[in-house]
Amino acid sequence: MLKPEEQLEQIRRGSEEIISEEELLKKLRKAYESDTPLRIKAGFDPTAPDLHLGHTVLIQKLKHFQDLGHQVVFLIGDFTGMIGDPTGKNETRKALTKDDVLANAETYKEQVFKILDPSKTEIAFNSTWMEKMTSADMIKLMSQYTVAQMLERDDFSKRYTNNKPISIHEFLYPLVQGYDSVALKSDVELGGTDQKFNLLVGRDLQRNAGQPPQVALTMPILEGLDGVQKMSKSLNNYIGITESPKEMFGKVMSISDDLMFRYYLLLSDRTIADIDQLKADVSEGRKHPMDAKKELAMEIVARFHSDKDAVEAKEGFEQVFSKRENPDDMPEYQMNTETKLLDAITKNGLNFLPSNSEARRLAKQGGIYIDGEKQEDIDKCLPAGEYVLKVGKRKFAKLIVS
Amino acid sequence: MLKPEEQLEQIRRGSEEIISEEELLKKLRKAYESDTPLRIKAGFDPTAPDLHLGHTVLIQKLKHFQDLGHQVVFLIGDFTGMIGDPTGKNETRKALTKDDVLANAETYKEQVFKILDPSKTEIAFNSTWMEKMTSADMIKLMSQYTVAQMLERDDFSKRYTNNKPISIHEFLYPLVQGYDSVALKSDVELGGTDQKFNLLVGRDLQRNAGQPPQVALTMPILEGLDGVQKMSKSLNNYIGITESPKEMFGKVMSISDDLMFRYYLLLSDRTIADIDQLKADVSEGRKHPMDAKKELAMEIVARFHSDKDAVEAKEGFEQVFSKRENPDDMPEYQMNTETKLLDAITKNGLNFLPSNSEARRLAKQGGIYIDGEKQEDIDKCLPAGEYVLKVGKRKFAKLIVS
Repeated sequence: MLKPEEQLEQIRRGSEEIISEEELLKKLRKAYESDTPLRIKAGFDPTAPDLHLGHTVLIQKLKHFQDLGHQVVFLIGDFTGMIGDPTGKNETRKALTKDDVLANAETYKEQVFKILDPSKTEIAFNSTWMEKMTSADMIKLMSQYTVAQMLERDDFSKRYTNNKPISIHEFLYPLVQGYDSVALKSDVELGGTDQKFNLLVGRDLQRNAGQPPQVALTMPILEGLDGVQKMSKSLNNYIGITESPKEMFGKVMSISDDLMFRYYLLLSDRTIADIDQLKADVSEGRKHPMDAKKELAMEIVARFHSDKDAVEAKEGFEQVFSKRENPDDMPEYQMNTETKLLDAITKNGLNFLPSNSEARRLAKQGGIYIDGEKQEDIDKCLPAGEYVLKVGKRKFAKLIVS
Repeated sequence: MLKPEEQLEQIRRGSEEIISEEELLKKLRKAYESDTPLRIKAGFDPTAPDLHLGHTVLIQKLKHFQDLGHQVVFLIGDFTGMIGDPTGKNETRKALTKDDVLANAETYKEQVFKILDPSKTEIAFNSTWMEKMTSADMIKLMSQYTVAQMLERDDFSKRYTNNKPISIHEFLYPLVQGYDSVALKSDVELGGTDQKFNLLVGRDLQRNAGQPPQVALTMPILEGLDGVQKMSKSLNNYIGITESPKEMFGKVMSISDDLMFRYYLLLSDRTIADIDQLKADVSEGRKHPMDAKKELAMEIVARFHSDKDAVEAKEGFEQVFSKRENPDDMPEYQMNTETKLLDAITKNGLNFLPSNSEARRLAKQGGIYIDGEKQEDIDKCLPAGEYVLKVGKRKFAKLIVS
């Protein structure tokens, strides 16, 4: 095991807040002296998991603890998931069955074990203890917090102030999460910054149960490809960890230079010293930022696929974007001399763009090429022959006009 | 069965609010037509019952329903009582055991069956269904109300505004009471005016469960002997239903004439027409108010003891207070010529008054008599002989000085 102070240094990396560092250091020292690993808890939603890089910020931090010799507990919060939305207002939040939960857990494992070491990871389900709770136990759990304390939570307070309904059972959910820490006897709980309140509930409930309170460690929320909003499926600014090497590589290459260093900090395994050196090299002109970005993209592709995939993705990217050549694996599109270029591009053709108006806008902005030449008029038809079509930065097709 | 309209007339007597009369009339009509009694619910605390007349206002109303042919359900809310105070802050609210609950239920029965007909009364315990509830059931129960709705309850709203803590489990208690109505399929629930919110929760939960909502009937809170504050043990302005005939009679006689008519309305079995006649007789001088009060006192003593006890209590009262004679059953107190009168009166003597200062105050006010003569100086001793001591209005003793 590394010395406690050195461990703390690694744990601190990229974290938003540690409550408290002093307590963490004490726990690390005790673990070091007694050669007993700490129990590191992180909770995950039981609904169908399809992780993106945003989720992996936390999982990377779990990995750091694992590499330092501690015991990671990957907690699946299936208890409330199996209840669904009891108000019946949210029809999309259907109650999961036990089978659903187990199937989702398998998918989780497939995905997270690309980062975590399976042999050092404990998978737990909170239904194990929550289902055993009697109605009297529930009342005792609820008695440990007051309404005013609960309304201090940022989202509750906003909803209450804005007269948006909060069902009473929602107050129970942070308490369930907190009780999970009691049941697991966790030493540290990890969560996004939006989880801070819930992590602190765990500390209180552990104290009430006579346990030493867990350390609450929050990780920042990762920005999406746009560099502004949080990475999320619904904003379509994400990199899914099951995406193809080519997609993954291309998406990393599309981010800004500033965001690249943020991703290095939160996603890469490189040391802080390494990253600082890289920053200096880029800012002083010793390294082209695109090369730094390629290294990041390769590290990420290699993590979720393989080293070989990473090399191939890089070569494919360079062929298309760096050398401005056309990719090898373009789709072919058959059309005739009466097909408008517009129709080849949109929904009934290659479906590169969703509507005529978007196609026309892109053409005006100079984003549509035939054989490397900008096309402003896309209502025209092409004479028989073969052409390379480029739409936007990354969509290519071979047009075969007959 | 009486006609529904006539039933409504009797039910309405003395009630504070019926939500709604229209619904109640519908239910009464249906019961009348189908010859099926309505289920009338009233909930009681499971802690050691020692009922006073304040409690009997509600029980009298149950009796009215019973006399009209309906089914009374006397619900003992033992589920939360067996949990006690889960916050541990209120040490006096200890968790009751099953045995405590059953013992208390027996005491309840002894007391309430002085009013209710045992053969027409169903005794229920809410632990029967509440203990069977799983943690998931509890969440579903909680999901049916919002935080804002709960904070509309008068006492919650006041406490929240005054920054007094409300534990989250307290929000559950109105829901438990409401769920009791679902479990019992009650048609009507009775409660004090302070119970209105909880009775309405029952309506909502029954509606959510697909049942016709119960009618909520509130009864006023009975004023204590002072005629101002609510009757309660802690204010010592109560008449306990297990008090002696003599005590009971004397206490009724001590109330004001206004309060007497209020008690007639809420506690007596006399018809409204009867009471109106009595009021007229008193106000027009055909009847002395003290005689009207004696009739009320006799009715109440007879209810909780017997007709014979009522007659005896009346005679005893008349002997002492009306005829200003000394009562037959005075205690005797042995003292010597060196005993101060003060010491005979206070704690170490007859214990008629708790402290020296109270005894001196009463003496100054002219409330202490020896053989019918006011005694201002109570630090004196009496010469050998026998005396009748009178302290305040109703405490007598024979002093034997030797």
